[in-house]
Amino acid sequence: MTDQQYMKRVLRLAKMGRGHVSPNPLVGAVIVKNGSIAGEGYHRQFGGEHAEIAALKAAGSNAKDAVLYCNLEPCSHWGKTPPCTDAIIRAGVRNVIIGMKDPNPLVTGSGIHKLRNNGIKVKTGVLENECKTLNAFYSKYITSKLPFVTVKMAQTLDGKIARKVNTRTQLTSEKARLFVHLLRAEYDAVLIGKKTAIIDNPLLTPRLVSGRVPARIILDTHLKCKPSLKIFSTAELGSIYIATGSQDAERKEYFRKKGIGIIQLKTDKNSFLHLPELLTELGNRQITSLLVEGGVEVFTSFLRERLIDRIILLIAPYIFGEGVNVVDIFSTNGSIVKLKDITRKQLGQDYMVMGTPDYI
Amino acid sequence: MTDQQYMKRVLRLAKMGRGHVSPNPLVGAVIVKNGSIAGEGYHRQFGGEHAEIAALKAAGSNAKDAVLYCNLEPCSHWGKTPPCTDAIIRAGVRNVIIGMKDPNPLVTGSGIHKLRNNGIKVKTGVLENECKTLNAFYSKYITSKLPFVTVKMAQTLDGKIARKVNTRTQLTSEKARLFVHLLRAEYDAVLIGKKTAIIDNPLLTPRLVSGRVPARIILDTHLKCKPSLKIFSTAELGSIYIATGSQDAERKEYFRKKGIGIIQLKTDKNSFLHLPELLTELGNRQITSLLVEGGVEVFTSFLRERLIDRIILLIAPYIFGEGVNVVDIFSTNGSIVKLKDITRKQLGQDYMVMGTPDYI
Repeated sequence: MTDQQYMKRVLRLAKMGRGHVSPNPLVGAVIVKNGSIAGEGYHRQFGGEHAEIAALKAAGSNAKDAVLYCNLEPCSHWGKTPPCTDAIIRAGVRNVIIGMKDPNPLVTGSGIHKLRNNGIKVKTGVLENECKTLNAFYSKYITSKLPFVTVKMAQTLDGKIARKVNTRTQLTSEKARLFVHLLRAEYDAVLIGKKTAIIDNPLLTPRLVSGRVPARIILDTHLKCKPSLKIFSTAELGSIYIATGSQDAERKEYFRKKGIGIIQLKTDKNSFLHLPELLTELGNRQITSLLVEGGVEVFTSFLRERLIDRIILLIAPYIFGEGVNVVDIFSTNGSIVKLKDITRKQLGQDYMVMGTPDYI
Repeated sequence: MTDQQYMKRVLRLAKMGRGHVSPNPLVGAVIVKNGSIAGEGYHRQFGGEHAEIAALKAAGSNAKDAVLYCNLEPCSHWGKTPPCTDAIIRAGVRNVIIGMKDPNPLVTGSGIHKLRNNGIKVKTGVLENECKTLNAFYSKYITSKLPFVTVKMAQTLDGKIARKVNTRTQLTSEKARLFVHLLRAEYDAVLIGKKTAIIDNPLLTPRLVSGRVPARIILDTHLKCKPSLKIFSTAELGSIYIATGSQDAERKEYFRKKGIGIIQLKTDKNSFLHLPELLTELGNRQITSLLVEGGVEVFTSFLRERLIDRIILLIAPYIFGEGVNVVDIFSTNGSIVKLKDITRKQLGQDYMVMGTPDYI
């Protein structure tokens, strides 16, 4: 097997940690001795054993003179666990093959440096793009202290999300909904606007899959959400926040008593919430990834402020000819958005288009 | 090889006639003797030799006791050429394998009947769906005397065709344009509205591919098109028509003198052209297939009148957030359109979605 093939196995292992390791990165490790796998492991949960340690334990004395494959540069500092580089050196590993350097500006390169200083041959950049994609949330967060922001919208072929204003139109199929629930289980937090909260009255849980419930956030500038919304009776499933600009101390206290967190934000002269401040607040809470699930006003605001790292459109095979547009005017200087690095996937009768927004 | 595999070869042969045989069907034929191909042929051009005759000639005396594969039931009547059934019987063919019956209500089944009456074993329905798709234009036309209508629109992900009203925005890539030119070469006629004619000023020729120029039609209710449009100086490339409700005899005569045909239509109380009448007129001119290339008003009118057999959307990877919607309100009773039997294809950076409109 080639380095690329072993690295693919490493990536598959790393993915098993999805939804459990944040704010840590997803890491897998495979140890190969004389052409066969001597041990492997992955980072299973935040604070737990690192992937390299799990693989070294599994390999035992076979780790001596072996090759260790790892998607991310091994750590050389004390965090919640001792440095992995020391364990690798102690085990007598001869070669270390790495997918990508640790983007953490305080760490990057020092793990590789330490391994080389101890006579270990290190190769980097194997399946680097795949490795970077896998840890896009971690990379954004560790370099900016801000969450990676994805907006997901469901729409018709002609770009409508509903047939009529202030009504909910179920557009997508069961398979697309399952896909959304898988997304929810991957992200640290999910966010919707007040209108969507009222019209759709959703729980925002990944109940169709067996994943952990993300933090759930409602953007509600004037704190107008009714406490009777279904989501507010599910605080025991996971954190719920209302991000608001309201100064109504009594109403905020009412929600706090129900176990709902309040994120206090400034509003601008148009009484729009200050979204960069929201992302800073979420970063402070170690939320490394945010899934924005609409509605139109929220999507438009995030687009206007250029705060989106990824856009996911779930396109149902309908043509409405009238109704609510998926996005409103967001351009302030005549620019448009082009989606780059597009991935497409059929989900039942629907079609998923995912890409990175580029302003041109 | 199986019957299905031979029929696939038949279909490939039949497709070679695209753009040349209308209003006749696309037909291919393969003659198999002792497990190998003894002869094959296809209908090359309107009025020319039928596929079965070409295959029989190629097979010569090997046609005796052979199997003949054909996507469409062989004809048993005198048209521009003698009946194929007679030639098949005369050649001593033992088995005939047919994809689909001839949908022509005056013919259907009689070819099969005649073959069977002469001791030939006939099997039908091999790759029937593929055969029906291949001759969708012919089937619609021969049963209704109306052309098969496809609407093709280019749009952004959020369903916009242009950034601003009355301007042209080049959305799609070279590959998508090539695809459109291939379409033009397949259809008997191409149609646009007056606004598109003025804003885009197109030639509507398939100049990126080597195909015949379709009849080109401009819908112009009040005959407002300027004679200076580029298309009007290309009448030597193929027929050009203006479909109009205008009573301005002088202006119509002016266009006729330039070699532009006038299709006179009634208008309704909202001064919309009567589109069913247009299709009847095109059918009378033996136009079996019509490609409608916009704009929005034309697409919306055809949708409202339920005259569309196929919709093709070319989706460019942009998000505008403002601009001109690909389609306007078309529903008169709350119904929406769902695309059925969808085919999807990547065309460079763009994405093609093709399907049949179903009103639900």
